[in-house]
Amino acid sequence: MAENKSKKVLEEFGDKIVSQIKKGKNPEIEMTLRNLSNIIYDTKQKILKLGNKIQSRSFFNLAHSKKFLQTVEVASVIKKELLGSGKHSSLRDVFYMVKRTIPGTNINLVEDQTESDKALEDLEVITDFSREQLHVAANKMGSVAGKVIIEDKGDTIDWSKMGSGGWSIPSITDELKFKKVSAKYVLYMEKAAVFERLNEDKFWDKNNCIIISSQGQTTRGIRRMLQRLYEEHNLPIYVLCDGDIYGAYIYSVIKYGSIALAHASGRLTIPGVKYVGITMDDVIKYDLKKHFIKLDEKDYARIKQVSEYAWFKNNKDWLRQFKMMKEFGAKVEIQSLTSKGISFISEKYLPEKIKNKEFLD
Amino acid sequence: MAENKSKKVLEEFGDKIVSQIKKGKNPEIEMTLRNLSNIIYDTKQKILKLGNKIQSRSFFNLAHSKKFLQTVEVASVIKKELLGSGKHSSLRDVFYMVKRTIPGTNINLVEDQTESDKALEDLEVITDFSREQLHVAANKMGSVAGKVIIEDKGDTIDWSKMGSGGWSIPSITDELKFKKVSAKYVLYMEKAAVFERLNEDKFWDKNNCIIISSQGQTTRGIRRMLQRLYEEHNLPIYVLCDGDIYGAYIYSVIKYGSIALAHASGRLTIPGVKYVGITMDDVIKYDLKKHFIKLDEKDYARIKQVSEYAWFKNNKDWLRQFKMMKEFGAKVEIQSLTSKGISFISEKYLPEKIKNKEFLD
Repeated sequence: MAENKSKKVLEEFGDKIVSQIKKGKNPEIEMTLRNLSNIIYDTKQKILKLGNKIQSRSFFNLAHSKKFLQTVEVASVIKKELLGSGKHSSLRDVFYMVKRTIPGTNINLVEDQTESDKALEDLEVITDFSREQLHVAANKMGSVAGKVIIEDKGDTIDWSKMGSGGWSIPSITDELKFKKVSAKYVLYMEKAAVFERLNEDKFWDKNNCIIISSQGQTTRGIRRMLQRLYEEHNLPIYVLCDGDIYGAYIYSVIKYGSIALAHASGRLTIPGVKYVGITMDDVIKYDLKKHFIKLDEKDYARIKQVSEYAWFKNNKDWLRQFKMMKEFGAKVEIQSLTSKGISFISEKYLPEKIKNKEFLD
Repeated sequence: MAENKSKKVLEEFGDKIVSQIKKGKNPEIEMTLRNLSNIIYDTKQKILKLGNKIQSRSFFNLAHSKKFLQTVEVASVIKKELLGSGKHSSLRDVFYMVKRTIPGTNINLVEDQTESDKALEDLEVITDFSREQLHVAANKMGSVAGKVIIEDKGDTIDWSKMGSGGWSIPSITDELKFKKVSAKYVLYMEKAAVFERLNEDKFWDKNNCIIISSQGQTTRGIRRMLQRLYEEHNLPIYVLCDGDIYGAYIYSVIKYGSIALAHASGRLTIPGVKYVGITMDDVIKYDLKKHFIKLDEKDYARIKQVSEYAWFKNNKDWLRQFKMMKEFGAKVEIQSLTSKGISFISEKYLPEKIKNKEFLD
């Protein structure tokens, strides 16, 4: 069982500290450094990841001791309360479980959730297990429908028999089993309303695929599920976002990872993912200029920033998109396609682009 | 079919305008006034609703003519594109379908989504059909699990066999059919993370109920589903929110309605709903003071505002809660219960409060 492995690693982590104490040493934790100076874009693997720099944190060091205690306490709570019971919890719950007054003082071990969150990230790096494998998750979000049958917590769930709603994606998707995958590709979209359009049109049935949506940024639960469908079932993953810089960034996080979660890239990123739209070329081809929304200063600043990221700055196709955005001075939403007809997106736009492999990489 | 009824009402709406034009009259639309001066709190029915004031909008009136056109165009799009095809769409999609340049001018019929949204609200009042019955919805959100079997779009869906995810609630819940409802009550919570806790603990199985969550404000789709379970299946509805003024307001919207949607109260409100927690009394009973979060100026201002609402200002129990919030100068989250043990909420807090009927009304 995966739980037993992660429990064992946490036990070893504790044993090491105990043995340092017994030897009269200053207890010390070593881990890969997680700040910007040690986050690199690996041009070969095409993912954001941590470099080789190591940091150490010791108990008898005024600057370290509270963080040291926090890391140890979070490890203890995870081992006892979560892995020990087989239960899962949210980041917020971990905060409340760890929050207690240090005996003999009036100091709380953690005052703010960012402290327990950071300790958890430390433990991901130290143990090489993901937060999800340690049974902790952020909020759930998003829906899925398509030709797939899964098994989860003893239930057999057919994603093609979910009516107008879809299956609600849990925050942790490591443990579900894919029993039968008949779909040929996955279409992920950033907007729940577009999901409802495609679901009502039975797009996944007619095109033999899986449709997945969240709302805004992609949750870790969805990223992991996309990665598993890509790796375990060789399904191509296509991403559908608004034609703006935020859409481009959502795509890039799925593909390359993010700075904040560089240490988790291996379990979340999908180098082979493709961007299906909306592109600035779509605007011309499908005559969407009248639905342009003007860029504001924030948009321009974000375009500049994103174009300079290591994973974009040598990508000619994307740089061309960013240039066009600036020339148009505008962005465009997925739903502007509705102006061509309510089901234009599911009957023409998507089937055409996917058939002709009109993707951005 | 409900679709045919609403189509017929829209046709009559159009016919009336055509007949006015043929008679050489100034085309005019009459509808119940929707601004604050005509929104009343009905102390008998205990819901927010519209009064009897009527407004009229005529085509040959410079101040009215654009709004007149927008209302007629939205009615036309709904009849032709949505009810005509049996398809549903989002508010944003309606905006794009309506947005076109008025021939012979360079003026767009709508420039901003608020304009088509308002026209839709007009049509709800004019036709006495809800937006959902006119096939338009806002974003979907939320999950459900429990002892219920539904039928939706030809699929039979068992809410007790949804694994760790739950069924993803669609934006429109008017059309699903409840085939078998074995649950004895419904627990609605504002937080998805709490849903995951209760779902993992099989709370709905052990307590023979239904659990439903969104994230933050309750969607219309969820409110309508709660109302249908209450009215069609006589299920008590209990609401679980953070112990703060925003939680109290989320509860009050489900119970009494909201100012913005006063015209839709009849189809959304649930006068019999009860508030199960978190209360300021829980803080004392369950020793949660150490997890207090300090109120800021915005919180105090909101407490003042909410206490003065007609549907709170004579409610002694709630006024006492608001007073305690101010005395404590603090609020508390649902998840602070985790400090008593990861499953304290599902094994002790909720079963105890529900058994003892410790509710706020």
